[in-house]
Amino acid sequence: MEIGQGATPAGKLWGGRFSRPTDALVDEMNASIGFDRRLARQDIMGSIAHARMLARQGIVDSADASSIEAGLRLILAEIDRGEYEFRVEDEDIHLSVERRLRQLIGPPAGRLHTARSRNDQVATDFRLWTREAILQIAGGIVASSRALLELADRYPDAIMPGYTHVQRAQPVLLAHHALAYVEMLRRDLDRLRDTYRRTNVSPLGAGALAGVTYPIDREYTATLLGFDGVAANSLDAVSDRDFAIDFLATCSQLMLHLSRLAEELVYWSSSEFGFAEFDDAFSTGSSIMPQKKNPDVAELIRGKTGRVYGHLIGMLTVGKGLPLAYNKDLQEDKEGVFDSFDTVDIILRVLPPMLSTTRFRVEHMASAAAAGFTLATDVADHLVRHGLPFREAHEIVGRVVAYCVIEEKDLPDLTAAEWGQFSPLLAASPPPLTPADAISAREMPGGTGSRHVAAAREAARRSLDEWAGWVAGRSDDVADTYRRLGLDLPR
Amino acid sequence: MEIGQGATPAGKLWGGRFSRPTDALVDEMNASIGFDRRLARQDIMGSIAHARMLARQGIVDSADASSIEAGLRLILAEIDRGEYEFRVEDEDIHLSVERRLRQLIGPPAGRLHTARSRNDQVATDFRLWTREAILQIAGGIVASSRALLELADRYPDAIMPGYTHVQRAQPVLLAHHALAYVEMLRRDLDRLRDTYRRTNVSPLGAGALAGVTYPIDREYTATLLGFDGVAANSLDAVSDRDFAIDFLATCSQLMLHLSRLAEELVYWSSSEFGFAEFDDAFSTGSSIMPQKKNPDVAELIRGKTGRVYGHLIGMLTVGKGLPLAYNKDLQEDKEGVFDSFDTVDIILRVLPPMLSTTRFRVEHMASAAAAGFTLATDVADHLVRHGLPFREAHEIVGRVVAYCVIEEKDLPDLTAAEWGQFSPLLAASPPPLTPADAISAREMPGGTGSRHVAAAREAARRSLDEWAGWVAGRSDDVADTYRRLGLDLPR
Amino acid sequence: MEIGQGATPAGKLWGGRFSRPTDALVDEMNASIGFDRRLARQDIMGSIAHARMLARQGIVDSADASSIEAGLRLILAEIDRGEYEFRVEDEDIHLSVERRLRQLIGPPAGRLHTARSRNDQVATDFRLWTREAILQIAGGIVASSRALLELADRYPDAIMPGYTHVQRAQPVLLAHHALAYVEMLRRDLDRLRDTYRRTNVSPLGAGALAGVTYPIDREYTATLLGFDGVAANSLDAVSDRDFAIDFLATCSQLMLHLSRLAEELVYWSSSEFGFAEFDDAFSTGSSIMPQKKNPDVAELIRGKTGRVYGHLIGMLTVGKGLPLAYNKDLQEDKEGVFDSFDTVDIILRVLPPMLSTTRFRVEHMASAAAAGFTLATDVADHLVRHGLPFREAHEIVGRVVAYCVIEEKDLPDLTAAEWGQFSPLLAASPPPLTPADAISAREMPGGTGSRHVAAAREAARRSLDEWAGWVAGRSDDVADTYRRLGLDLPR
Amino acid sequence: MEIGQGATPAGKLWGGRFSRPTDALVDEMNASIGFDRRLARQDIMGSIAHARMLARQGIVDSADASSIEAGLRLILAEIDRGEYEFRVEDEDIHLSVERRLRQLIGPPAGRLHTARSRNDQVATDFRLWTREAILQIAGGIVASSRALLELADRYPDAIMPGYTHVQRAQPVLLAHHALAYVEMLRRDLDRLRDTYRRTNVSPLGAGALAGVTYPIDREYTATLLGFDGVAANSLDAVSDRDFAIDFLATCSQLMLHLSRLAEELVYWSSSEFGFAEFDDAFSTGSSIMPQKKNPDVAELIRGKTGRVYGHLIGMLTVGKGLPLAYNKDLQEDKEGVFDSFDTVDIILRVLPPMLSTTRFRVEHMASAAAAGFTLATDVADHLVRHGLPFREAHEIVGRVVAYCVIEEKDLPDLTAAEWGQFSPLLAASPPPLTPADAISAREMPGGTGSRHVAAAREAARRSLDEWAGWVAGRSDDVADTYRRLGLDLPR
Repeated sequence: MEIGQGATPAGKLWGGRFSRPTDALVDEMNASIGFDRRLARQDIMGSIAHARMLARQGIVDSADASSIEAGLRLILAEIDRGEYEFRVEDEDIHLSVERRLRQLIGPPAGRLHTARSRNDQVATDFRLWTREAILQIAGGIVASSRALLELADRYPDAIMPGYTHVQRAQPVLLAHHALAYVEMLRRDLDRLRDTYRRTNVSPLGAGALAGVTYPIDREYTATLLGFDGVAANSLDAVSDRDFAIDFLATCSQLMLHLSRLAEELVYWSSSEFGFAEFDDAFSTGSSIMPQKKNPDVAELIRGKTGRVYGHLIGMLTVGKGLPLAYNKDLQEDKEGVFDSFDTVDIILRVLPPMLSTTRFRVEHMASAAAAGFTLATDVADHLVRHGLPFREAHEIVGRVVAYCVIEEKDLPDLTAAEWGQFSPLLAASPPPLTPADAISAREMPGGTGSRHVAAAREAARRSLDEWAGWVAGRSDDVADTYRRLGLDLPR
Repeated sequence: MEIGQGATPAGKLWGGRFSRPTDALVDEMNASIGFDRRLARQDIMGSIAHARMLARQGIVDSADASSIEAGLRLILAEIDRGEYEFRVEDEDIHLSVERRLRQLIGPPAGRLHTARSRNDQVATDFRLWTREAILQIAGGIVASSRALLELADRYPDAIMPGYTHVQRAQPVLLAHHALAYVEMLRRDLDRLRDTYRRTNVSPLGAGALAGVTYPIDREYTATLLGFDGVAANSLDAVSDRDFAIDFLATCSQLMLHLSRLAEELVYWSSSEFGFAEFDDAFSTGSSIMPQKKNPDVAELIRGKTGRVYGHLIGMLTVGKGLPLAYNKDLQEDKEGVFDSFDTVDIILRVLPPMLSTTRFRVEHMASAAAAGFTLATDVADHLVRHGLPFREAHEIVGRVVAYCVIEEKDLPDLTAAEWGQFSPLLAASPPPLTPADAISAREMPGGTGSRHVAAAREAARRSLDEWAGWVAGRSDDVADTYRRLGLDLPR
Repeated sequence: MEIGQGATPAGKLWGGRFSRPTDALVDEMNASIGFDRRLARQDIMGSIAHARMLARQGIVDSADASSIEAGLRLILAEIDRGEYEFRVEDEDIHLSVERRLRQLIGPPAGRLHTARSRNDQVATDFRLWTREAILQIAGGIVASSRALLELADRYPDAIMPGYTHVQRAQPVLLAHHALAYVEMLRRDLDRLRDTYRRTNVSPLGAGALAGVTYPIDREYTATLLGFDGVAANSLDAVSDRDFAIDFLATCSQLMLHLSRLAEELVYWSSSEFGFAEFDDAFSTGSSIMPQKKNPDVAELIRGKTGRVYGHLIGMLTVGKGLPLAYNKDLQEDKEGVFDSFDTVDIILRVLPPMLSTTRFRVEHMASAAAAGFTLATDVADHLVRHGLPFREAHEIVGRVVAYCVIEEKDLPDLTAAEWGQFSPLLAASPPPLTPADAISAREMPGGTGSRHVAAAREAARRSLDEWAGWVAGRSDDVADTYRRLGLDLPR
Repeated sequence: MEIGQGATPAGKLWGGRFSRPTDALVDEMNASIGFDRRLARQDIMGSIAHARMLARQGIVDSADASSIEAGLRLILAEIDRGEYEFRVEDEDIHLSVERRLRQLIGPPAGRLHTARSRNDQVATDFRLWTREAILQIAGGIVASSRALLELADRYPDAIMPGYTHVQRAQPVLLAHHALAYVEMLRRDLDRLRDTYRRTNVSPLGAGALAGVTYPIDREYTATLLGFDGVAANSLDAVSDRDFAIDFLATCSQLMLHLSRLAEELVYWSSSEFGFAEFDDAFSTGSSIMPQKKNPDVAELIRGKTGRVYGHLIGMLTVGKGLPLAYNKDLQEDKEGVFDSFDTVDIILRVLPPMLSTTRFRVEHMASAAAAGFTLATDVADHLVRHGLPFREAHEIVGRVVAYCVIEEKDLPDLTAAEWGQFSPLLAASPPPLTPADAISAREMPGGTGSRHVAAAREAARRSLDEWAGWVAGRSDDVADTYRRLGLDLPR
């Protein structure tokens, strides 16, 4: 008799104990194959490693293990050719692969699930998938950071108004502004590396919740799969989704940063700011207004922040108050991660060409940087250098500005006599009044002085090279894992 | 020359102003047709109404309008037969339908977009879709409420322990417990009705943002489409997604309620509580543990709460700080609503059969209700009726319980002498000590007394009938809209 | 012997069953008096109503009830004079008031808690508080809406650029723009009214969870307290916090709207937009940059959106998966509501004077409205009126705009010959080219035409009067409640 | 004339440019001193370091710097003695301290703000505060982890049912269960260490946004303040709140873990589970039900998860779409962090004594572990060891269980003949049937076997010692910072 075929009234691989079939709605609600099919490659990786270990430990015989491994390889080939049929009745990718394996190799397929539960299997698959996702995103962050750095390189001396409260504050270099985002992205890389470290741990062998009763070798499967270690507690191993939350939290912060850049690009491309013009290839039009050239990409980046935040809060909500160990609620862990990955991934791919094709109107920026009393602080500092306490200097310059606003003048328009009304010092010793003065006055670590910004560009370049090296190194590890298991690399 | 074909380098309907094609990644990121195809039917409804109005007002001639309407009807037939091709290059459902219309009827298709923008069009489509979603969910809530009411009807007298802090508190009727959920669901219906009222308002005619320059008749299209009114301000009309947030907030509260029920069902079906056993059709097994019969459905209900909360926070995030009027960020409005609808919808369909097939172990509940000092309050109340202030009575009974815990006795085990140690009154006048006493002592509006619970069942029945009537009435309105526009009802 | 003093080792009113005192950290963590003291007035209202009912029903004798009521009135007077001592040891406001009452009137105080639990008591207090909060917020929304309306009245004809995607789109009236916000706020009022309806229901008499064993009259206390009805199910009544979530969800949407306005005000007050200048009284300066005049209030409005969203998600998280009936988790319900109220309240108080003192630079707006091809749609519509399909007209005007961008011209600069290159029609019949043309072309319901905007202002005025009437009416109801219970109105 | 006194109409330190005082409501809304007074100590630390650097670099003269430092020390002493007056008019802690300093030392106080803005100052203060908060929380996690480890040590061999889906699954050791939480908490420590690394970076010297015009030494102040490095970009430095989000995200995950433990403790202390009884000192009673002994602390832990999640989403919302550099929205960064710290801190202080005083009913756990077919997997594995494929074995045992359910038998009750009906193997070779069998069958890394759990306890002990060492080491660094600046350690 074919095992599990007819024998179980429910037609389910787990149906022995059941006397009636599952309700169709339950099948529909329960089935995760609609999304966990994305784990197919990782599921097969995990199963090959598991089968090799079972044979090595004498738990299944070598012939069966070889047959299993060959069958799994065939299945992956079917998937890669788009010929594999994902069926809702199979519930999830694990049972789907197992059922197909039985079709291909017969009874030995039934031995693959020895010493393993779907609980440790899915946790393994999901970690394998997430580590690749992390590397892909990290690579994208490096590329976007380099695009920002290239922007800084392209405009090493362009001056723009620096803003606080969206009010012109002090002149800064456009390059300095671009590098501020590189700093944010470097922190995101740091968080991703931390996430990778906590993700790349093997839950395989934890069984359903308590470990298994076979003499398995967890270190061996971990090594085969390129994990850096083995989860220390089986109950935790099957119910821990911290790595997914780490990923979502990191993506959320990344989106926060990108939404800030996006907001700036939206406004910079407005008529009012006029600082930037997107290339036609990165703009869209209006179905009704023929003149419109809209910054849709930047708006979508800003808007898509919401969905990633939502996925984070969704997963946090799922985990709240869940008792040990595995609960079905945890099936809700994947879609948010998948969608966050897809969202962030395309953004990071579109950002570099968009930035590199955007025209920055540096002359317009420069004239904006000269207006709006952006040198007021420097005038106050000038007074301080002549002996006044800063508070007093601030007060005096504040009054100068109030005077200018009423008289509709800018600081460079003032005569020595007018300066003198506020401070004899200002009449005697003319204060700095050009944006270039302001820039060169801020030659200090972290400041917007040209030399220091040039140095910051070099430092960023080196740092990004190191990050690229980290991504490449870990990607090689992943590639080695595929090779070790006799599988082609994805894509 | 075919308009917009070759003429626009970008190959876009809005491409006149552009000299270079859109980047492929931008197309991919920008395209919403992957999900807004779900609005196809509503888009065609809106376009038919718009075309009729254009003809009636003499803005397009009647022949063209008839041709447009016929073409739109053909497109919907193609969609219903599954023969319509949704192409990513078409960006969104609106341009997709318009392009197909041009293929079918030629140049007159170009007149459909007169006096309309995608901004008011998509707002119209989305409102039409959401109002149907609201009615579907409302119908599901009525059905689930009735399932709870039937549960109450099935067990009119079954006594269970009422809990606070998951500690046995006072005996209640299972029917009373079930009706508590009916109350929550009735409030959800109330919120849905409010949401419907704010949703069923026509933005059509707001144009891109400022109204249009044609003598359109907004009241007429609103009436054709079954809207209850017309949005009063064009800038608001194209950027208002309050109805979507109302929907998500209402779904979130609904999920909160259902997650409470789900939590109880999960625990009640445990060995420890032993209050309920799901039918095989509503349980699933384990791939490794042959004995397992898991309450997956209840767990999924509880877990899916997270995604709905996430969609709410996602949409709130999208809207935060958006300037007027339409911004592309708003394209992020739909997926969360669609997914929340799908999530809530399947839950509300699975809940009634699951509840009706669940076996409640009323005898086990009854014995649990008798244990754990659940009558202690009644003993204190007994003392109060004999003249003690409640605080003093509470204190005395507290000490009785402490004594029982040490002596490992339950209240009915105490002798008159033992009672007398704490209060002569208790020795003289035996207090009520059975769950049935406790139930019958609470015959009051809202209380768990049998007569009042029976009355509450009748009141709930009437209320649910009224709610069903509301759903039916508004569903008829929607059906009339389809008929008025010459379209088949969906499904 | 003083009841509950020394008798209970734990020194707690509920301590009879306990043999050891509560840990100090537990007391600190458990105590809610630090925040629920805000409910003191409502607690006393509820207790007076409860005491009167107990006497009326013969559950306590009239002399005791009178003594209780007099004592409660004394306590409120102490609180109003700032002389009442809130002590952490009292745990919460309910036990605090009860203990003080015992000090003031002795043993009869112990009878107040007859037929009542803190579970129904706190739900009652919180609803009484929330309904007043709703009315206060609703009043604030009316006031802010009127400030927006006054702004529209002040500038009935000022033209500004309407934006989509932060790109100039079509000219609109500033008054039309202001009225868009009035629409949003009117929906918020609608939501608040719905929230009020669901809040103003009495849980009193639900007892701990199952009702009480005394012949109480719930309708009577509900009427005394000005509730519109009585909660139908005791289990639900003590664990329902839907009204708090309704309130938080409504505040969240309100904040979403206000954050949009705030974002616009921040940018409008920038040098780049130059549309608005805040009065000194509503701006702040910089500790370092003497020239800065920052829109802090608008920024804070935008930023405070986060905390309100956070409180909403916090409360949704608390409720997720909570079994029936009361659980201590529910103590987390208040602080988020209090803080959301305080946040929204001060914003709504600062907004009217800020708006009324802001100088709008209408001449600057007008010139911005004329630039940026904002008439392009009108030119296309002009072609349509001469017989072209809209899509073809859109295409032609798109090419005109592309030509202008290259030639650095604006539409009014074009010669008839240049127009003729794109369409003979445009050479023959000059299209509309001023913002005023665009405004007057949009005389339609909801459109930005001056006559319709004037009508919209009148309609908004009438609507706000009605809303003010609703607020006043319900506030009178609340005031009647205070009077009925012999209490002074707050503040 | 006293500087800034009368001179500025607004009475503000930044008021030079202003001609009218700030509106009182704006002052109320704007003022952060109500909460940022918590940063007083850190503000003074930062100012002392800044003053020393100014003197060292010759920017202010040494006498003035000494006077400033002495004054600041006096202020801190006033604060520590509770004699310092925090005034709303002072806006924030920075201006408050500066104003008091002027009172104490006169004009030289005006030199302290040289080369510094509140923007870099507050970022510095907040990082200094957060790093101490991290260490306090990390210490608390170590303590709670040790309490869990002590629980494991106390019950090395106690067997309980392991659960999946809240259904009894397989026997596990209570110690194994406790250690699962230690694993979660160790990951939280790992995240906190990462957060510390990203927090302990100096923004001081970034000025308002662009750096300063004085020859400051940022490395020197960073070293004085015990920072590990200097923020590389001034624009980023003043607007980066990633460390706060890291902190909130880490607290959120910690709360997720603690909410799981809390949920278990709530249910374990129910009559139904009966696994645990809290000490009276960690339980509370009911105001109405004399018998109640409620697990309030566990419930509050679970409930307080909501507020921490809320603070996270609040801060993410604040940051979304914020342009560079500093915006007032960022003032919203602190309260959520403070409240999350307070929340997590008290929980971690109450958890160890609560766990150590809780009585675990190991005999009851053991009998629960023996019931419910928890050995079914082991029976299937037994068949596998005799040659059956796992799937077939699973199927057979499933049918055995179904038989037992109908016959109301447990596995040990079955006769050889009954076993034989399902498999001759089971008749011939009796399967393992006691929980102890199941435990000893799982001697494997991560499994619940006694030897491996004992080893896991030792590994956890070593790991916690290392973590304690990390906390101690970094706390010493912080203490050194205080000493270096001549300040007493807090508390």
